[in-house]
Amino acid sequence: MDTLNGAGVSPGIGLGPAHVLLAEIPEPPPGARHDGDAEAEKARAYDALEQVAADLEARGAKAGGEAQDVLEAQAMMARDPGLAESVAELVGGGMAAARAVYEAFAGYREMLAGAGGYLAERVADLDDIRDRTIAVLSGLPMPGVPAAADEPYVLIARDLAPADTAVLSREVVAAFVTEEGGPTSHTAILARALGVPAVVACPGVTRIAPGTRVLVDGASGVVRLSPGEDEITTARNAAAARQALLAAATGPGRTADGHLVPLLANVGGPKDLEAALANGAEGVGLYRTEFLFLDRAEPPGAEEQEAAYRAVLNAFPGGRVVVRTLDAGADKPLAFLPPPGEEPNPALGERGLRMFRVHQEVMSAQLGALARAAAGSRAKLQVMAPMVAGTTEAEWFVRACHEAGLHEAGIMIEIPAAALRAADLARVVDFFSIGTNDLAQYTFAADRQLASLASLQDPWQPALLDLVHLAATGARTQAKGCGVCGEAAADPVLACVLVGLGVTSLSMGAPALPAVRATLARHTREQCEVAATAARAAPTAQEARAAARAHLPGLSDLGL
Amino acid sequence: MDTLNGAGVSPGIGLGPAHVLLAEIPEPPPGARHDGDAEAEKARAYDALEQVAADLEARGAKAGGEAQDVLEAQAMMARDPGLAESVAELVGGGMAAARAVYEAFAGYREMLAGAGGYLAERVADLDDIRDRTIAVLSGLPMPGVPAAADEPYVLIARDLAPADTAVLSREVVAAFVTEEGGPTSHTAILARALGVPAVVACPGVTRIAPGTRVLVDGASGVVRLSPGEDEITTARNAAAARQALLAAATGPGRTADGHLVPLLANVGGPKDLEAALANGAEGVGLYRTEFLFLDRAEPPGAEEQEAAYRAVLNAFPGGRVVVRTLDAGADKPLAFLPPPGEEPNPALGERGLRMFRVHQEVMSAQLGALARAAAGSRAKLQVMAPMVAGTTEAEWFVRACHEAGLHEAGIMIEIPAAALRAADLARVVDFFSIGTNDLAQYTFAADRQLASLASLQDPWQPALLDLVHLAATGARTQAKGCGVCGEAAADPVLACVLVGLGVTSLSMGAPALPAVRATLARHTREQCEVAATAARAAPTAQEARAAARAHLPGLSDLGL
Repeated sequence: MDTLNGAGVSPGIGLGPAHVLLAEIPEPPPGARHDGDAEAEKARAYDALEQVAADLEARGAKAGGEAQDVLEAQAMMARDPGLAESVAELVGGGMAAARAVYEAFAGYREMLAGAGGYLAERVADLDDIRDRTIAVLSGLPMPGVPAAADEPYVLIARDLAPADTAVLSREVVAAFVTEEGGPTSHTAILARALGVPAVVACPGVTRIAPGTRVLVDGASGVVRLSPGEDEITTARNAAAARQALLAAATGPGRTADGHLVPLLANVGGPKDLEAALANGAEGVGLYRTEFLFLDRAEPPGAEEQEAAYRAVLNAFPGGRVVVRTLDAGADKPLAFLPPPGEEPNPALGERGLRMFRVHQEVMSAQLGALARAAAGSRAKLQVMAPMVAGTTEAEWFVRACHEAGLHEAGIMIEIPAAALRAADLARVVDFFSIGTNDLAQYTFAADRQLASLASLQDPWQPALLDLVHLAATGARTQAKGCGVCGEAAADPVLACVLVGLGVTSLSMGAPALPAVRATLARHTREQCEVAATAARAAPTAQEARAAARAHLPGLSDLGL
Repeated sequence: MDTLNGAGVSPGIGLGPAHVLLAEIPEPPPGARHDGDAEAEKARAYDALEQVAADLEARGAKAGGEAQDVLEAQAMMARDPGLAESVAELVGGGMAAARAVYEAFAGYREMLAGAGGYLAERVADLDDIRDRTIAVLSGLPMPGVPAAADEPYVLIARDLAPADTAVLSREVVAAFVTEEGGPTSHTAILARALGVPAVVACPGVTRIAPGTRVLVDGASGVVRLSPGEDEITTARNAAAARQALLAAATGPGRTADGHLVPLLANVGGPKDLEAALANGAEGVGLYRTEFLFLDRAEPPGAEEQEAAYRAVLNAFPGGRVVVRTLDAGADKPLAFLPPPGEEPNPALGERGLRMFRVHQEVMSAQLGALARAAAGSRAKLQVMAPMVAGTTEAEWFVRACHEAGLHEAGIMIEIPAAALRAADLARVVDFFSIGTNDLAQYTFAADRQLASLASLQDPWQPALLDLVHLAATGARTQAKGCGVCGEAAADPVLACVLVGLGVTSLSMGAPALPAVRATLARHTREQCEVAATAARAAPTAQEARAAARAHLPGLSDLGL
């Protein structure tokens, strides 16, 4: 197999060595025996265990903090002399090293599981060490995604979940290719947000030998193994031509008939400003402030906050900057704001604005710092709260903003109830910003961190489009703005549908801006509306996407 | 204080000793010293630790299984000689026993937390033992809710979460009284479902001395401490008069103008049939089959399942029995169907129907057993799947039902997307049953297990009423039935509103049936519709409830 074909979902050309992410290390077959040299096989087993231990230790040293403690405890398990002894005994009896490791761990596993309580809960850690050791012995790729590499790699997997990809950037990943998934899967959305080429629904790709050089065309969906130099050049030229087409679309975001749709960037702090400006962002649609607060024993001081906010405001004189107040809890716990008790489902717990019902001083300090930063700035500051479910919370937040001297107070629409009651909420707040990722998570009761539920998190699902429509309509009744700042806005075709549903601005990872700008500029507002109506009339995400595309001509020119 | 006043939310008279549930055991003051007799104080401390250990052991023996291992490990911690020594040393230096226990545990706590990994996660267990010991020493009530008692007690708390009350029944609880909460809080809903009197929003009630005899009038909201015999008799007579009024409403569920609304019972197995029949259930609206499957290493065999299903079907010749297929996962894990990996939010994970995508054989076996049980029965069997988000899943389930020889296949509406796209789903399935508890959990992104988010789980919230309306309307377009089987149906006033929203049957815990039957019989369908429209027009749950009540005359006659 020299060529594989899939669906191109994020245009561009990627080249690099294959890193195959296996969901599961297969169990070594029960009867597996070595070739007779027991001492050599024992040495292989010891080496593998030591390699795993050293790797865990190295990762721990890099991670620091509590993660280091956990990883060092795992390394100790891999170096347990009792374990090595069990392995040696089994190999001595003729068993292959991989199977011996499997069985030796099984003994420990049973012991732990049987102990109940604390110990039983550690079985998953043990399985991880076992799988890593077997991977080394079997020449299989190590479970997990490397967060750093000498050369950007092509990440290949059955499918990817947000948890797998949290640490990735375009510096380490040259392209994504998945065996499953569709044009609307997490992989596709993430790839577009990062500006990394991606191919999904590519059968057979996980059987590529690790390390093989792979050329990925994220527009055509073609994946070439060990490509020649000519081939690489041709592919790069075609991508450059498309790139030129995108670059030709400049200026403020608008439809073909001149309806303005401000195109904004999602940023996590001053470090993201360069990319936002380079890609022509008209402002910031989502400034995630939690990066200032994570991994600290105390909240950042007033001056530090003010400086971080001012840096972003100053980058957009005359533009708008939408700041989301601290969205902690759930998958982003804070050391100084622990949840009040054990939470069986943190995503449904005390997170976002809810946390500040008991810790109002943290919110007040942030709002104060924002007001001071805005005072000397020429940008228009808008502040919004995450995780608002209803009018009571919204009223409380707006009051706090006004008391701090902030004039424009809005909310994220990311809880289904907020979209359903948008008409009530639009009376209370100044603007909405729809967070499609969390909104989809709750609307479909499907954790965004689970790849196995990826199809349920598809932002093309008609139920999600219904809620976007409700939110935008509710905002319009009160002449309020309604943006989208979730990953859905980074899909150029979906972006047109969102505009057709009544969304008034779009915010996304900066690399996605040019393609969205170019796509929007080629379609009229009416075409967007017709496409949106067609999508909502479909019963499934796949049909919704096909129906919308049928009403948006010329997508293929843009490689979409 | 001899009398306290709150809001009566579940009528009836309850009498029993006060059991005060404290959310938190306060930290003994840092400077606390004993009166000088160190030996006596040490003995008190040892006795308290031993009492806690013995109690944990006894609870373990009663619980059995894995819980026993955990509780015995906790008992061992309480008996740790090193811990006793630290306490003795501190008491020897003049410190009060409670403070000495607090500080001795703090040392261990720090050690565990510092160890990271496994051990750090056990800090909560240690805190529990510490709190129990301090409770004994300070004469405070023990944390937690007793699942058994010689005499039914009056459970008093700041507020109650489902987790606190999972083990309760009317055999152990005479009444509920909470300091916070409203007429729509979990406490109120649970109390009505159990048929136990309840008073909420009762300031000062958590300061009642444990063990005080308390008389609770769940209609008037009056809570009397140490009542006289006369008083008890008078209260019981009034409750009996109301009871007579309820008993007078008999026959099938219907509005005052004769619109039929079948009133059905929620059951967990044959054991619940007696109460269902005694309260005039016209059938079963929700048969939760997971009780057959929990706590077993293997799924129950075909014969065992068939027998359990047949027993329920046979209790309602000519009636309907709606069986929900196994709803495992989340807070109900199964030993033989573990989730495919670690789930950060089990409620948003592989639960309900989703589990059977990989374990279809378990579903097929259950559907087969149901078909065989129905073959010889005179009841009308309807089978429904939990956790359906869209048409693809619904079609798959309907096909499986038909293949098994089952004719009527429906779905739970408990994911917001399913309510939003009810019109699509009604084309695919034969009926809907709305699970208001999970639907509220996802619609408001608020875990039903967290008391701190109780106000967000209020079924009177207009956004939830909107979704009920969407589901009922979607069903009506295809002439399909749409019942409600969540706790909301057990609130007699809300039951009228649900009927007004277009719901065609109501299913609830059997004790709630008489009050719902009597309330429905006093109001016309049009009154219900007007009340429903008024409730949906309100911006908050409180206002929705008030608006609905204003359109439903005569509620006070029924003590509502």
